[in-house]
Amino acid sequence: MTERNENARIGLWLIGARGSVATCTAYGLAGLVDGLLEPVGLVTAREPFAALDLVEYDQFVLGGHDVCTRELTRSAGELVAHGILKPDLVTSCSARAAAFESNIRPGILDDADVGFADVDPDSMRLGSLAPLERIEALRADFDDFEERHGLERTIVVNVASTEVVREPREEWTSLELFESALQAGESQPASTLYAYAALASGRPYVNFTPGLGASIPALAELAQRSKLPYCGNDAKTGETLVKTVLAPLFVARNLRVLAWQGYNMLGNRDGEVLADPLHRQAKLKSKNDALRKLLGDPDVHTHVGIDYVPSLQDWKTAWDFIHFEGFLGAKMSLQFTWMGSDSALAAPLVIDLARLAEFSARRGEHGAMKHTSSFFKSPIAGGTHDFHEQMRELLTYVERHRRR
Amino acid sequence: MTERNENARIGLWLIGARGSVATCTAYGLAGLVDGLLEPVGLVTAREPFAALDLVEYDQFVLGGHDVCTRELTRSAGELVAHGILKPDLVTSCSARAAAFESNIRPGILDDADVGFADVDPDSMRLGSLAPLERIEALRADFDDFEERHGLERTIVVNVASTEVVREPREEWTSLELFESALQAGESQPASTLYAYAALASGRPYVNFTPGLGASIPALAELAQRSKLPYCGNDAKTGETLVKTVLAPLFVARNLRVLAWQGYNMLGNRDGEVLADPLHRQAKLKSKNDALRKLLGDPDVHTHVGIDYVPSLQDWKTAWDFIHFEGFLGAKMSLQFTWMGSDSALAAPLVIDLARLAEFSARRGEHGAMKHTSSFFKSPIAGGTHDFHEQMRELLTYVERHRRR
Amino acid sequence: MTERNENARIGLWLIGARGSVATCTAYGLAGLVDGLLEPVGLVTAREPFAALDLVEYDQFVLGGHDVCTRELTRSAGELVAHGILKPDLVTSCSARAAAFESNIRPGILDDADVGFADVDPDSMRLGSLAPLERIEALRADFDDFEERHGLERTIVVNVASTEVVREPREEWTSLELFESALQAGESQPASTLYAYAALASGRPYVNFTPGLGASIPALAELAQRSKLPYCGNDAKTGETLVKTVLAPLFVARNLRVLAWQGYNMLGNRDGEVLADPLHRQAKLKSKNDALRKLLGDPDVHTHVGIDYVPSLQDWKTAWDFIHFEGFLGAKMSLQFTWMGSDSALAAPLVIDLARLAEFSARRGEHGAMKHTSSFFKSPIAGGTHDFHEQMRELLTYVERHRRR
Amino acid sequence: MTERNENARIGLWLIGARGSVATCTAYGLAGLVDGLLEPVGLVTAREPFAALDLVEYDQFVLGGHDVCTRELTRSAGELVAHGILKPDLVTSCSARAAAFESNIRPGILDDADVGFADVDPDSMRLGSLAPLERIEALRADFDDFEERHGLERTIVVNVASTEVVREPREEWTSLELFESALQAGESQPASTLYAYAALASGRPYVNFTPGLGASIPALAELAQRSKLPYCGNDAKTGETLVKTVLAPLFVARNLRVLAWQGYNMLGNRDGEVLADPLHRQAKLKSKNDALRKLLGDPDVHTHVGIDYVPSLQDWKTAWDFIHFEGFLGAKMSLQFTWMGSDSALAAPLVIDLARLAEFSARRGEHGAMKHTSSFFKSPIAGGTHDFHEQMRELLTYVERHRRR
Repeated sequence: MTERNENARIGLWLIGARGSVATCTAYGLAGLVDGLLEPVGLVTAREPFAALDLVEYDQFVLGGHDVCTRELTRSAGELVAHGILKPDLVTSCSARAAAFESNIRPGILDDADVGFADVDPDSMRLGSLAPLERIEALRADFDDFEERHGLERTIVVNVASTEVVREPREEWTSLELFESALQAGESQPASTLYAYAALASGRPYVNFTPGLGASIPALAELAQRSKLPYCGNDAKTGETLVKTVLAPLFVARNLRVLAWQGYNMLGNRDGEVLADPLHRQAKLKSKNDALRKLLGDPDVHTHVGIDYVPSLQDWKTAWDFIHFEGFLGAKMSLQFTWMGSDSALAAPLVIDLARLAEFSARRGEHGAMKHTSSFFKSPIAGGTHDFHEQMRELLTYVERHRRR
Repeated sequence: MTERNENARIGLWLIGARGSVATCTAYGLAGLVDGLLEPVGLVTAREPFAALDLVEYDQFVLGGHDVCTRELTRSAGELVAHGILKPDLVTSCSARAAAFESNIRPGILDDADVGFADVDPDSMRLGSLAPLERIEALRADFDDFEERHGLERTIVVNVASTEVVREPREEWTSLELFESALQAGESQPASTLYAYAALASGRPYVNFTPGLGASIPALAELAQRSKLPYCGNDAKTGETLVKTVLAPLFVARNLRVLAWQGYNMLGNRDGEVLADPLHRQAKLKSKNDALRKLLGDPDVHTHVGIDYVPSLQDWKTAWDFIHFEGFLGAKMSLQFTWMGSDSALAAPLVIDLARLAEFSARRGEHGAMKHTSSFFKSPIAGGTHDFHEQMRELLTYVERHRRR
Repeated sequence: MTERNENARIGLWLIGARGSVATCTAYGLAGLVDGLLEPVGLVTAREPFAALDLVEYDQFVLGGHDVCTRELTRSAGELVAHGILKPDLVTSCSARAAAFESNIRPGILDDADVGFADVDPDSMRLGSLAPLERIEALRADFDDFEERHGLERTIVVNVASTEVVREPREEWTSLELFESALQAGESQPASTLYAYAALASGRPYVNFTPGLGASIPALAELAQRSKLPYCGNDAKTGETLVKTVLAPLFVARNLRVLAWQGYNMLGNRDGEVLADPLHRQAKLKSKNDALRKLLGDPDVHTHVGIDYVPSLQDWKTAWDFIHFEGFLGAKMSLQFTWMGSDSALAAPLVIDLARLAEFSARRGEHGAMKHTSSFFKSPIAGGTHDFHEQMRELLTYVERHRRR
Repeated sequence: MTERNENARIGLWLIGARGSVATCTAYGLAGLVDGLLEPVGLVTAREPFAALDLVEYDQFVLGGHDVCTRELTRSAGELVAHGILKPDLVTSCSARAAAFESNIRPGILDDADVGFADVDPDSMRLGSLAPLERIEALRADFDDFEERHGLERTIVVNVASTEVVREPREEWTSLELFESALQAGESQPASTLYAYAALASGRPYVNFTPGLGASIPALAELAQRSKLPYCGNDAKTGETLVKTVLAPLFVARNLRVLAWQGYNMLGNRDGEVLADPLHRQAKLKSKNDALRKLLGDPDVHTHVGIDYVPSLQDWKTAWDFIHFEGFLGAKMSLQFTWMGSDSALAAPLVIDLARLAEFSARRGEHGAMKHTSSFFKSPIAGGTHDFHEQMRELLTYVERHRRR
């Protein structure tokens, strides 16, 4: 194994760099480096992760793509107003935030999202290029970033809003077909272009959102060919997290789930995007699948709703009602209400995954990072949705790779 | 290993035989034998437990002790009125219930409980005997039961109401001191006399309640001397079960629990007994300990309350509020409401534990049954309170003992 | 005012006579007459209603229409299994239930509902008749019922399932146009035919469901012409009831409601019917309107969902989340979970409304019964949705009409 | 009636001037005057209160007593950190806050509260004076305040923490006895000394807390003698508010409440004080009484708990579970969770009551202000606890006094 070089600087490139998750990641990382924050909510900050030789917070250099022009301080101001970022932290870390902002480049807009407000004109212009040209532009941004900062390696993490769901395409089933389609100039979802640009240029890729990202076979093939690690999809931060912790209880105790109704409300940009049925579909699917698989009953009555409630802003509020049958036919219920800041829950996981991806890349591991399944609603590598099982896989990984 | 004799009959002796749990166990077992019920809520009825050669439902013969004289049909009638037992089941299984009732003998009243209503005069009379004479009486009941029914073995399960908490005594620390105290005629908690009578006469003992039962060192020694398996304490059926499923989530994700407030309400006999602060203390302790150990923080702000709400009858209703901190100091919450029939949740676990204890006894295992920790709030053998970890121990046990 | 004749018998004719509400009404009324039940849940059984000379429970004779053939004992059996009717009550009142069943006649199927299971063949046959012939058939049933039982008067109450929503029609705007349309043989919603048959033949009409019933201008005109009282629509029994109690609090305290999200789940026949979007629309409209009017803000963010969750059966479970702003811009929330038996909540109100309608008819009142607005989600006579205001109107009515 | 003099300045004197409620009142009032806040949560800011000629926000001059020395900016800083005050508001209104702080004088410590942290040494010194001397000191502060600011009148509002409960005393039953006791130098609860000082010197008194304040007969007599209006006790801001809105629903619909369990959690100074059983008792009593009276059943099973949960800070979180019976003996439930900032809910009511008290005083009304009962858990003037009835009394008062 390659030892960690304490002086190496590692790029953390965020797609969706002006959004809430990226903003929380940037200020949070700055706060950790400056000792203003405790690493609460970071999985890799707890034991036994010290046993791994993970990259330190101060080794990261932040950059990213975004399709809008909203200034980072405006994003930060909103998060302060919503009670998520502390005003003191924003003030103290303004220089670090400005450094990040200077590394943000215009991203490529997904064709289905044309028409959104405050789109960066440069992103619009990129949208007129052929797919291969867009990829080239992204890659040039990565290269420039690494060169300017003398980075050893860059981890690309997609934290952009949910993409629309698309019908599966023949061209996604192999790298050869996908590259032919690119050559032919056929329009592709933005997340696949980002993933292609990252993986084809030797950068590990983390798909934090429910988009296609690196989950199509063509790109899995590309990761293999490039000998790179990748992971995703759709970070498990709130209601689904609780679901995948609770559902195994019913299985373990042989209690029969009669109905599991989940109602989600959120009011941030993600919520606005999900208010559109086509975008919502991707999210609902990954939420429902996990539950059915966990309960081992494809016919169990489940429902997942997502409603856009602007006043809630980033405070995701979800109510789940679980109706179940016990012995003697007695009907019982468990209901829970979850109230959490989606972005504050997501940001530390972005840092965790960047650290784990860097570790994998440094060790020369490639392919889907199976040990990260606990982080995702739809783990690319498949496997169980049982959160505790997934955590055990992660701890086993740590055990296997602990430094002597 | 000893093969299971399919014709063998196994005694299941319930202390607290006229209570709700015993009544649900009796009608439930009858319903399983007659094919009127599905084994929902029985852990040992799900995979992979078929891999063990567990005793079948129809091999059990029921008997028990109780200190009151309430007829079983009255207990059943109440459970029907409360919506727990189905009227059809009670009608169909009346003969089996009557057979059980004919095997119920007057139990010994705990000295602290003198003065309760409807106490069996025979139990009062037993109360005037010296401790050793009481033990002898219990043992004679066990012997007579086995003889009359030609039983191969009897499993004793204590499902009586919660006993008062008592200060630890020197005489409980070793079998020798305990037996001297018995000889000296010193009054002992009823649960320890039952446990002594069972273990001293070669019968495995399951302490389903929070009482002392077999948990004092003296009786652990007796079980070792008698080469018998035993387990307990305090079955994990509701709010604490959910707690021990959820708490590991916060640890795993490094989220800081700021406060965990649990409010329990119940209205059955158990609730009435727990309305007394001295009785309640035992329950609260086992509920709070589990949480603090799981969170790994002895100073975490927790609260557990139990209130007697008669109108709820057997429908235990609990509300837990978990206040926690995520990244960036953001405060979030998870709250849940549990509504379940305590007796319908407990009864299948009684059957599970009887099957597992019989299996252990048949195989010649002795000492605390470590693999049953998932069933208890305060596992006698210690170990983790993490429900999923505990389940894994049980599944590992099954794996190790699967029939070829 | 006409004195009540204590020997008079009053018909209570239920449209939807084999459904849950009618079944609960029938057994409940029988239980009241036989002294087996206390009048819990009946508004007219509390003070100051004794001041009115309302018809006594034992003066009612039950009859009704239904389009299905399910036996009443089967409906009752289901309600017993679901924990709503007590088995003892069903047994004790079997003769009274049989008497009711002997008065049930085939109803007329709404054209939009053709194709449902277990439809009475006679209802199918009625469906082939012209509208006026159908009305004639209904009216003949009323006449026959009154004659056979020597009834002084009959109150017709529609407790059938929710009808599909229909576009407003020109012909509903006046009695003349409506009668022309009937003559022309144009198909009409079943509820309007029932209402026409009742009102045209001198019988007060209560529209307990969200259907059109007597709420169209044409039928309001008919009631005026016939000098008859009538009321509706859509009984306020659960979540909406709580809403119209809570919403005025926010107005009174000048707290700004930011969002009011309501999620309803139910599993009975009504829930099944409402699973169909066209049927659901009627219900959602009346639920949402009340809230917006109460809050005095047509733009307030509200949502009402209804999901069919079969396992819940008649136990309507609803979760409402109210997000509101207080002084200083502080955001707060109130959430509630309602769990109630829809039919047990509705049945006593059917009896209340029948008593009040009889009283109005006896006194010669006609037109919309304004004083019954507290009973309905969409009071036909309009007015406030504030439950406490509505109750005050009812109490004022009582005060005005108290017997000397 | 005396017309309002638009140039008059009115004193608003807050007892407990450095606490959360006073701090929110001060910044809130400043924000209203400067147009930085909307009057959300102020009852008197909604219609039809414009019909009264109430004092305007900018006419108020703030002053107060406190027994601790914590700077107002520190109180404000905490409220910002807890997400209640907005940082911008605190910055913008710093001059107005400083003006308020310059009018804060050392208060008198209740004897039972000796030993608290950060007590103002001057308050300690005042504590060594005889009761009449203390009253004199308070009165001198009032006079000095009015003189320095040229005030037309001062309204005294007690927003200090809950006092310990005390046994009723003979000397409280008449003014004569009370004044004799004062002369005799007998120690009295601080709230009664404040109330005496205010009322004896011609200032209306509002007892916003659960303390004795002006509620004892002796002080009611004093208010009558002084021809002054007064009101209290214990502002109704959260869980009890919801209770007194919901309980009338059950009465109105004749639904039988079987149990009403209320669990309150709070983490502010008030919560800390209430963690002491003696202080808590006062609060619990006023919470429980209201419910029992509303339900009209002195034996109804109710429970009110208050737990101190420091992490919640000012965010009072309460869970109520209402178990009730409907028709046919069906048992149902309603549960609600209230999450609100206690101080942000209280502050606007302080302003409302000051405006209403000034109005009453200007008009020469004296005695208990019956029309303010909706503001209190234990209205001094008695009457119903039904919130909607109470609001109606207030609206009737407005109607009667509307300016021509």
